[in-house]
Amino acid sequence: MKVYLDCHACIVRQALEAARLATDDEQVHARVMKAVMARLMDLSPEHTPIHVARETQLAIREAGGGDDPYAEVKREYNRRALEMVPVLQSHIDAHPNRLAAAVKLAIAGNIMDFGATGGIFDLEEAIDSALASDLDAETLDTFRRQVENARLILYLGDNTGEIVFDRLLVEEIHRFSNAEVVFAVRSHPVLNDATPADAEEVGLPDVARVIGNGSDAPGTVLDWCSDELRQLFATADVIISKGQGNYESLSGTKGPIYFLLQAKCEVVGRDLGVPKGTTVLRAQTPEAIRKAAG
Amino acid sequence: MKVYLDCHACIVRQALEAARLATDDEQVHARVMKAVMARLMDLSPEHTPIHVARETQLAIREAGGGDDPYAEVKREYNRRALEMVPVLQSHIDAHPNRLAAAVKLAIAGNIMDFGATGGIFDLEEAIDSALASDLDAETLDTFRRQVENARLILYLGDNTGEIVFDRLLVEEIHRFSNAEVVFAVRSHPVLNDATPADAEEVGLPDVARVIGNGSDAPGTVLDWCSDELRQLFATADVIISKGQGNYESLSGTKGPIYFLLQAKCEVVGRDLGVPKGTTVLRAQTPEAIRKAAG
Repeated sequence: MKVYLDCHACIVRQALEAARLATDDEQVHARVMKAVMARLMDLSPEHTPIHVARETQLAIREAGGGDDPYAEVKREYNRRALEMVPVLQSHIDAHPNRLAAAVKLAIAGNIMDFGATGGIFDLEEAIDSALASDLDAETLDTFRRQVENARLILYLGDNTGEIVFDRLLVEEIHRFSNAEVVFAVRSHPVLNDATPADAEEVGLPDVARVIGNGSDAPGTVLDWCSDELRQLFATADVIISKGQGNYESLSGTKGPIYFLLQAKCEVVGRDLGVPKGTTVLRAQTPEAIRKAAG
Repeated sequence: MKVYLDCHACIVRQALEAARLATDDEQVHARVMKAVMARLMDLSPEHTPIHVARETQLAIREAGGGDDPYAEVKREYNRRALEMVPVLQSHIDAHPNRLAAAVKLAIAGNIMDFGATGGIFDLEEAIDSALASDLDAETLDTFRRQVENARLILYLGDNTGEIVFDRLLVEEIHRFSNAEVVFAVRSHPVLNDATPADAEEVGLPDVARVIGNGSDAPGTVLDWCSDELRQLFATADVIISKGQGNYESLSGTKGPIYFLLQAKCEVVGRDLGVPKGTTVLRAQTPEAIRKAAG
């Protein structure tokens, strides 16, 4: 997804929030803001919001904001989500369509996104709303069939906390599919995105092979990822792309991708053709690829 | 009031809204955004948000966005407010403290601010909430006494629509004060701020001497105003400063100023020490002047 002009104000706001989380030094805040605006003034057409978000984090690091300003937020998000596992599991067990429930809950977990929400969200509300939402039935059927017949599934994770919800979906997948599941997270800390250490904290290695994707971007920019990740991306039978960051960076990329996300802002909603706040399960389509190619 | 780092995202958002209102040409939108970010990257300490807001409007004009993109919005706001006069007048007539009611309503009218609200506001709600609010009793008493004894009152108007509410306050002032009231508006169109033509549309010349302030800024930057305005500012016994734009540009200026405004954003609220949304009547204090001097 390209950087829309509507994204500029949001990116500037997020940069300030991130800089403040990293340090109290107001000179650092000002330097980060300047760096981000300089980047926005000089965008190339192939830049996505994820490119700018990564550079924001680089600017914070370079301005002296430390390596992992979100460390505490991340631990807290994982803790909160782990506490909810019994409730989430009972939702899945009680649902007439277990996979639908697990997919909806995985999407609900995507609300745990400090970047897009500024840390202000209602997790319980997101869960209720996702469970009450209607996924596209045909897409869900195709998803189930492809997962069932897959040998290799690449699951692109997103945020801490959210990865607990993802774990439950992976467990659900194992109930009807013999596919190997590789769960990719960011190799280096960025925003509250999950890294291998965060994935370990919630027991993801018990249900999937967890790898770092080789990058420190809050999305999946393939050019910045490891050879291993690119190889998996090229050969996986199903790619599950979680969250807005992965959508923004992969929305025009060829592949057997299913996007599972909350449309947390107007712009992403418009790009997807749905209202803000929608629970989205969307298969990558030739139309989307053509659209992204401009 | 200085440009806080929190203002940047809001200014960028407002610039895009204004550019879109002016033209559908996306290249113009992009040029305006670049101009505004370049300005934000190169602020002087004496710059207020009003300085940047004016430059945004200049950038829109220079990029081909026309002279008065808000013309239609302004007519609509005046029309809506004029329709409400009977209701507003009955509120004042029924109130045990007529002046308090007129002041509160004048502040309620300040919600008609396209810049700060993006055109999304609930006028009825603003009126109810202002009438239910508590003004500082001591400040209101001092205001009444100073107005009563004044020979010259300079009333710095703000937005179209809002000036209808101001007219009722001026009428109320005439009931107990013999002061001459000079009502200053922007000389040239900027955002939905009132100009002399807009003031005429709502009958302001019937109750006050209406003048243009010599400037096209959406506030009162004295350096940019006419000699006449500066002279009035220096000699008025009471200065009524309406709205956020006038507050942002005059908050540290010496003078017998009373600020009447809605704190429509967190930053202005913080600067005033009140929650966002507060109905504010505030006398200029030596402390405020010292604070602005840094």
